[in-house]
Amino acid sequence: MTRRLSSQEVGRLALGAAVLGTGGGGDPYIGQLSLEHEIELHGSPALIDLTALPDDALVAPMAMGGAPVAGLEKLLSERFAELPIRQLETRLGRKVDAVVPLEIGGVNALLPFMAASRLGLPVVDADSMGRAYPTLHNTTLHIFGMRASPMISVNEHGDAVTFDTDDNEKCERMARAIISEWGASACSVLFPLSGKDAKRVLIPKTVSLALAIGAGIEKARAIGRDPLLSIIEELSMVDKDSSARVLFEGKVVDVVREVTGGYNVGRGRLVNLYDDRDEADFIFQNEYLELSGRGRTIATVPDLICFLDLENAQPVTCELLRYGMRVKVLGIRAPEIMRSDAGLLACGPRAFGLKSDYRPI
Amino acid sequence: MTRRLSSQEVGRLALGAAVLGTGGGGDPYIGQLSLEHEIELHGSPALIDLTALPDDALVAPMAMGGAPVAGLEKLLSERFAELPIRQLETRLGRKVDAVVPLEIGGVNALLPFMAASRLGLPVVDADSMGRAYPTLHNTTLHIFGMRASPMISVNEHGDAVTFDTDDNEKCERMARAIISEWGASACSVLFPLSGKDAKRVLIPKTVSLALAIGAGIEKARAIGRDPLLSIIEELSMVDKDSSARVLFEGKVVDVVREVTGGYNVGRGRLVNLYDDRDEADFIFQNEYLELSGRGRTIATVPDLICFLDLENAQPVTCELLRYGMRVKVLGIRAPEIMRSDAGLLACGPRAFGLKSDYRPI
Repeated sequence: MTRRLSSQEVGRLALGAAVLGTGGGGDPYIGQLSLEHEIELHGSPALIDLTALPDDALVAPMAMGGAPVAGLEKLLSERFAELPIRQLETRLGRKVDAVVPLEIGGVNALLPFMAASRLGLPVVDADSMGRAYPTLHNTTLHIFGMRASPMISVNEHGDAVTFDTDDNEKCERMARAIISEWGASACSVLFPLSGKDAKRVLIPKTVSLALAIGAGIEKARAIGRDPLLSIIEELSMVDKDSSARVLFEGKVVDVVREVTGGYNVGRGRLVNLYDDRDEADFIFQNEYLELSGRGRTIATVPDLICFLDLENAQPVTCELLRYGMRVKVLGIRAPEIMRSDAGLLACGPRAFGLKSDYRPI
Repeated sequence: MTRRLSSQEVGRLALGAAVLGTGGGGDPYIGQLSLEHEIELHGSPALIDLTALPDDALVAPMAMGGAPVAGLEKLLSERFAELPIRQLETRLGRKVDAVVPLEIGGVNALLPFMAASRLGLPVVDADSMGRAYPTLHNTTLHIFGMRASPMISVNEHGDAVTFDTDDNEKCERMARAIISEWGASACSVLFPLSGKDAKRVLIPKTVSLALAIGAGIEKARAIGRDPLLSIIEELSMVDKDSSARVLFEGKVVDVVREVTGGYNVGRGRLVNLYDDRDEADFIFQNEYLELSGRGRTIATVPDLICFLDLENAQPVTCELLRYGMRVKVLGIRAPEIMRSDAGLLACGPRAFGLKSDYRPI
């Protein structure tokens, strides 16, 4: 099924992507304005199902790397999203047939739509994380043994760097070295793959998922209903096997954080608004990794732990979380591939140095 | 005129290139062994005159970047010199017709011969520095406004990175970021250019110059004559307009150095062996930049200031210079392009933060 993303849906997509960012991935608000502007200029991009891809299609996953804040400023730069696709086409000697978000969480959900609008390409309703994660290794593409190279990164000045290596970890390290040299922002295409492989390894319908979450929140706000109930309802409409529930509701009474190794790392505590003996502790590294309370683990990665403002269901990123904020924590079960042995090895609690075992929501 | 570089000439080339390294560029001894081995396996590479290049030839300048010491170890790695040429061919969609040293000073004089032997390509008797210098900006290629991109760097594991930018300074900074990530060693092709441009911007006959200097030292050693006289004699045979002379003869009585900003920076003093009131001061940044004495400048960049061991005329690099060493300092006037206004701007004393004015040898 092919349909077009309307300008009105951009805000909904940005809101849903912020929830799926699980505290990381950057706030997509400026990206939303940029995309709305692109659509005005170049028209609405098509959104196509994974199953609609021909086997021999060339699919280009896209993402921004670097500090989200710098990235948002520079996203406005003209041709920033277009150039890496053009470079990839020159490199591979053929046209790209579709773009797809590398991660559906945060600002990176919007980026492929900008390129798609400008280039007249469709966006595939899928991604390789089902949320936001910090590195290339947290993608289904890496888990399935796909090669990140040739990876092409560009900056807002039109400078481009092409990385060729068989080792995805090296690819990530090289890209980080360049992105840091560039001032912490770059737009990249990586893991270029065939339609056949895309259908095998990508997580389907995650753009629809983000749109549904955004729609749920908008609807609840309009009728004054609890947004989390709307979100859970909308999720079940996109995916019958979805599992989501409210994990905790309370006030932030403690947060400590530091920026270490390029990550935003920290922990904190929530207290139930009506019962101050009911507490929950959380840990984050760019994204929320774990929530525990009453002596047991409530949820861990790869499941999604989403902090939403108690009043308006606005997603709260790890860097904006402050003492005194009142939040609801929504848990969403991760896609099946992320719950497999290989998925847990790359994205489970141990992959982030946590001691907990994974227990699905 | 086409001729082949014999295995016996490799030592001579390495010796001459070490003199032209003017204290920097790395000691080519391990490179010499590697090249001798390559020639044994793959045959002697052809050495051709700049004038023999067809206008539409594709010429690939080559250089190693990073710390010379790391570079020498890794030079032995198989295919290290070949891979960037192959990558450039894929990128440009055509065959490379000839390789050329980016710099004739130090280990980089030997690198293109390794690639040439393996690939059956000729080496052009020319370079873009006429000596060793620390950065891309010190090349005639940059001075004439040529574009360093596409620049391709590879490491000994076969990882490759392609840089595309209109700004040569950025190209250098990006390459340094990657080379540092790789552990300070890479083999690069950069400033790919046509035969027509090569004839216009490269410095001709600098491989012959290095060979002549090496031959002069070997001959003098064999007959027990002063090597500097032989060098000066051989130089005048390659280039009638050459100007070279002994600038000072003495003992090192002081050296201070530090590694700062990735450079080996320092200064020191020489004293005349027979008259201890006759002193000379020198300054270096990777290469010897300036020699002064008796209240006046004796020589500065872009002219070549070469420290040679008093006994055997072995070139002494800045990092090996020690208290008590007895040296002769040979001065060689820089090629004409380096003495032009544009050349002095890029490579003269002010370009290195010195206060002296340039006075040609």
